[in-house]
Amino acid sequence: MGYLESISTPRDLRGLTATQLDELAAEIRETLVHTCARTGGHLGPNLGVVELTMAIHRTFDSPHDRVVFDTGHQAYVHKLLTGRAGRFDTLRQEGGLSGYPSRAESEHDIVENSHASTSLSYADGLAKAYALKGEERHVVAVIGDGALTGGMAWEALNNIAISHDSRLVIVVNDNERSYTPTIGGLATALTSLRTNPRYEQVLGSVKKRLNAVPGVGPVAYDALHAMKKGVKDALAPQGLFEDLGLKYVGPIDGHDRAALEQALAQAKKFNGPVIVHALTRKGNGYHGAEQHEADQFHAPGPFDVATGEEQPKAAIWTDVFADEIVKIGEERSDVAAITAAMMHPVGLDRFAARFPERTFDVGIAEQHAATAAAGLAMGGVHPVVAVYATFLNRAFDQVLMDVALHRCGVTFVLDRSGVTGDDGASHNGMWDMSILQVVPGLAIAAPRDGARLRELLREAVAVEDAPTVVRFPKGPPPADMPALERIGGVDVLARGAAQDVLLVGVGSMAATALETAALLEARGIGATVVDPRWVKPVDPALVDLARSHRLVVSVEDNGVAGGVGTAILQALNAAGVSTPVQLHGIPQEFLDHAKRAVILERIGLTPTHLADAVAAAVGVAADDARVG
Amino acid sequence: MGYLESISTPRDLRGLTATQLDELAAEIRETLVHTCARTGGHLGPNLGVVELTMAIHRTFDSPHDRVVFDTGHQAYVHKLLTGRAGRFDTLRQEGGLSGYPSRAESEHDIVENSHASTSLSYADGLAKAYALKGEERHVVAVIGDGALTGGMAWEALNNIAISHDSRLVIVVNDNERSYTPTIGGLATALTSLRTNPRYEQVLGSVKKRLNAVPGVGPVAYDALHAMKKGVKDALAPQGLFEDLGLKYVGPIDGHDRAALEQALAQAKKFNGPVIVHALTRKGNGYHGAEQHEADQFHAPGPFDVATGEEQPKAAIWTDVFADEIVKIGEERSDVAAITAAMMHPVGLDRFAARFPERTFDVGIAEQHAATAAAGLAMGGVHPVVAVYATFLNRAFDQVLMDVALHRCGVTFVLDRSGVTGDDGASHNGMWDMSILQVVPGLAIAAPRDGARLRELLREAVAVEDAPTVVRFPKGPPPADMPALERIGGVDVLARGAAQDVLLVGVGSMAATALETAALLEARGIGATVVDPRWVKPVDPALVDLARSHRLVVSVEDNGVAGGVGTAILQALNAAGVSTPVQLHGIPQEFLDHAKRAVILERIGLTPTHLADAVAAAVGVAADDARVG
Repeated sequence: MGYLESISTPRDLRGLTATQLDELAAEIRETLVHTCARTGGHLGPNLGVVELTMAIHRTFDSPHDRVVFDTGHQAYVHKLLTGRAGRFDTLRQEGGLSGYPSRAESEHDIVENSHASTSLSYADGLAKAYALKGEERHVVAVIGDGALTGGMAWEALNNIAISHDSRLVIVVNDNERSYTPTIGGLATALTSLRTNPRYEQVLGSVKKRLNAVPGVGPVAYDALHAMKKGVKDALAPQGLFEDLGLKYVGPIDGHDRAALEQALAQAKKFNGPVIVHALTRKGNGYHGAEQHEADQFHAPGPFDVATGEEQPKAAIWTDVFADEIVKIGEERSDVAAITAAMMHPVGLDRFAARFPERTFDVGIAEQHAATAAAGLAMGGVHPVVAVYATFLNRAFDQVLMDVALHRCGVTFVLDRSGVTGDDGASHNGMWDMSILQVVPGLAIAAPRDGARLRELLREAVAVEDAPTVVRFPKGPPPADMPALERIGGVDVLARGAAQDVLLVGVGSMAATALETAALLEARGIGATVVDPRWVKPVDPALVDLARSHRLVVSVEDNGVAGGVGTAILQALNAAGVSTPVQLHGIPQEFLDHAKRAVILERIGLTPTHLADAVAAAVGVAADDARVG
Repeated sequence: MGYLESISTPRDLRGLTATQLDELAAEIRETLVHTCARTGGHLGPNLGVVELTMAIHRTFDSPHDRVVFDTGHQAYVHKLLTGRAGRFDTLRQEGGLSGYPSRAESEHDIVENSHASTSLSYADGLAKAYALKGEERHVVAVIGDGALTGGMAWEALNNIAISHDSRLVIVVNDNERSYTPTIGGLATALTSLRTNPRYEQVLGSVKKRLNAVPGVGPVAYDALHAMKKGVKDALAPQGLFEDLGLKYVGPIDGHDRAALEQALAQAKKFNGPVIVHALTRKGNGYHGAEQHEADQFHAPGPFDVATGEEQPKAAIWTDVFADEIVKIGEERSDVAAITAAMMHPVGLDRFAARFPERTFDVGIAEQHAATAAAGLAMGGVHPVVAVYATFLNRAFDQVLMDVALHRCGVTFVLDRSGVTGDDGASHNGMWDMSILQVVPGLAIAAPRDGARLRELLREAVAVEDAPTVVRFPKGPPPADMPALERIGGVDVLARGAAQDVLLVGVGSMAATALETAALLEARGIGATVVDPRWVKPVDPALVDLARSHRLVVSVEDNGVAGGVGTAILQALNAAGVSTPVQLHGIPQEFLDHAKRAVILERIGLTPTHLADAVAAAVGVAADDARVG
């Protein structure tokens, strides 16, 4: 290392010369590229914010001033500048640095959650708290243009516009993209801010003139503000934000550190809410990312630094969905697809290429995705809304009140459900099968393998009078597991020598249940392994099967509170079936980041742990039976 | 009746002369006032949309064209014009007309949900479906300026702006209010549209000139659009919407039917998405509403038509909260309050009057309310977020990921929880105690009476490292029910002659449980009645109490799926306690509107029904015990 080694707090940045800062920026880029090449990670976004993050830390005084990063994956540079450079090679490894801000790691981190569009709300609250308490602290929120498409950001802007006492600087990190290019009217509005040639012309001349005045920067806020009234008619660049009554500085070249620092310094002086509009380039400074057309290396896995080639990846669940939904689209012209700014990650890119007129990318806007889907269904189209499981939480009210209340045939495809691991607490999709239990009429399918994903997806899109959900995990699907027979809608996957235990393997846990059964058989405990396929509502066949066993064991890749196991327990209770039930799922807590397999081991969702727990319970059940 | 009698479909409006239409408008207002005076209802909003609704139905061809009302309580006039005038006196009565659009009532109704800010998303989906299918149908969304503060509306606008093929007319019903005046930057932007004097001046002269041309309306869209470029610099009124790339017509006097019809006709011709900005006055045309300063009779109970005086109301749960939170605010300067456009309904008006600097009305923006609260908590303030229980669903992700993940001390006060009745399916607060079960660290209190509300609210705001929830129902609280003793955190309210049944009365159901116990005692069944007070997490004392009884019966005013009863069942199961559990709650379905008491009777949450169910189960349990 060079300069980076000497930076233990952001204050250490202040003593560096312009040349040293430039060298530091290059060093940061090299560190980002070489680390991510090994660990994988959000390389593209971080390459875009090197100068911006340096400028923020030179202008503001963290942690006295607070910096909140929206979708915290753009905080790698921040980590490097806040005393974590020495440990940066442990990025995203178990026990190592998180891929997101982490309060356990540093006093410079305050918000850990990585769901998008939240930073302005946190910042509004923080700034209001400091104002109430008379503390002179600034709050800086860094938010991408993609995240501005989320409704929360609008709600926050609407409030911030009247928070006149808030020392709040909103840095719009405008790279014209979320995962993929930002869509919608907002993009239009930002483009007009960015590209108005007359504005840039004037800006250039303003810069030149102001540069000539000692102590006044090239994009001095006050000057711009003062002249705004005069040039506004010709330029009208402040439009969107100005209409809300927000002060606006920009656009600034987000890779011109000096310009950024001057803009931020002026914004800081204002002591009220201000927007600083910085234009950045995702992947900036690394050819492998810049040339990566799809997403500028938004979040590659390990790759070769020289070529920018990612290591080949095994086919994942997403690929099975991507393939099958295209086939369904070919057969049914009334099936449409919706993504919330995640076309590639959820596997809708192939559908979009084949049926562009039937594919809708709504931006980071899960609420709108769900309710627009209800509208499409009311109009006679069957929408398939594909999102990460954890992000459906954003649309819970809409799934319930807009889709289910109107009995709309909408299929939600939840990718990355269950334990996802690397991306930390807020990416695990461990909530869906619990909260969706309350939605009247909604049915949930959890396929155990690729063949069942294809089958259940087809069953789901055939339902026209209620919402359906198909959920599957991260990573590659297991080899297909054929059923011995189907009872009701329940697949029987294995039968033991005796009917001691009914092992209910939900979705990806079916494979685990089969392995568990093998271990149990070796201990002389006979297990029937079933996959309910549709886990909501509880299949009556499951209740019947429970009657003929001494113990029911449910295993699910979902929070244990109110999940599938609980629903089975409740169904058995309601039916007066007294067979004891043992529930296995994810403990109801926020999980630290680590590889999926490591976490499953830690929380006991492995065949060995499960077999031990079941064997212990069968002993108890046997004792009970003897007493009874 | 006069003209209203003759209107069985909107087409019947077409044959009427201007004078007849004016008389019809007067008749509609009289009907609204006299009906609401008897039934209660959303009078103010509907008085504001008489001319607007008439104009929409004269311009568009429902149900071929679709009309979607945001927060459907503004659909009374629509009901009167779509064949329901004859039954309008049954408004909000069981078996009568719903207070919201209802697909069961009419083919002219398509969206029933009354949660705000959804209409644009439905409309976007509908219009896209029609475009995909090549159907030439228009979609009209009527949305208030208040509802535009909700993030969903922004997400929808962002998408609609690029839906060039959508025959979509967005009518902004701008009355400067939701329940109370609309807040935030949006209000600023709309005000600038409304009040720019130069704009109105120009508009006046345009009107005058265009009126002189036969066949061209006073605010003809094309003309305005054509001249826009020329006058924009002087006026810039289209700002907000224009920046997103949306066509804009307005502002129009929302009580000038002819002007409205001309604007709508022009918008219709455009065959792409257009905003029509109508200025209306809530409560217009009825002195009792116009003079009602707080909210223009947003939703009064029965009242005297002559005086506008509402019938006196008993003190409700909200009043207890309103009183106690002021006391808490006096004792603790670090307690702040947040409302989402519901200052009066949730009882924060007294707090706001006393501590204006510590009270934040964020608009219809529950997501922002939750996350800004997290920010306030991070800044050392304890926020109390008061919302209707059903609306917390909008902020589920934020409660989980923004508040709970960061272990923020935020107290959510959920008013109108459980069965609310009159306002129909989407107002019942029957989801919160189920979905919140999954939130790590969050604790839920359900007070049984006013004294416990005060007590539990104080316990809640004392928690600084986790979110807390206090939930209570609509209506007046029962007389205080003192406890015989407290075991752990559980209050024992009654002990029977024998320990047959442990009756767990959750919140408002504690009173019901006590009455049930009395009925059971009369049948020779001894019941212990307990109120857990904090229902999440399950109190270990409750598990111990279960061991010493033959049957556990939980009664809650919440959905039976995954609710408190289920959590108790799960806790007993985990602790190996085999006492059978009988769960009583709201069946997991959307409830039709009726009085709360009527619904509770219908779903069996009354002492008589409960006693019967418990007695039957005790018989079974007794049989089991004998067999055992």
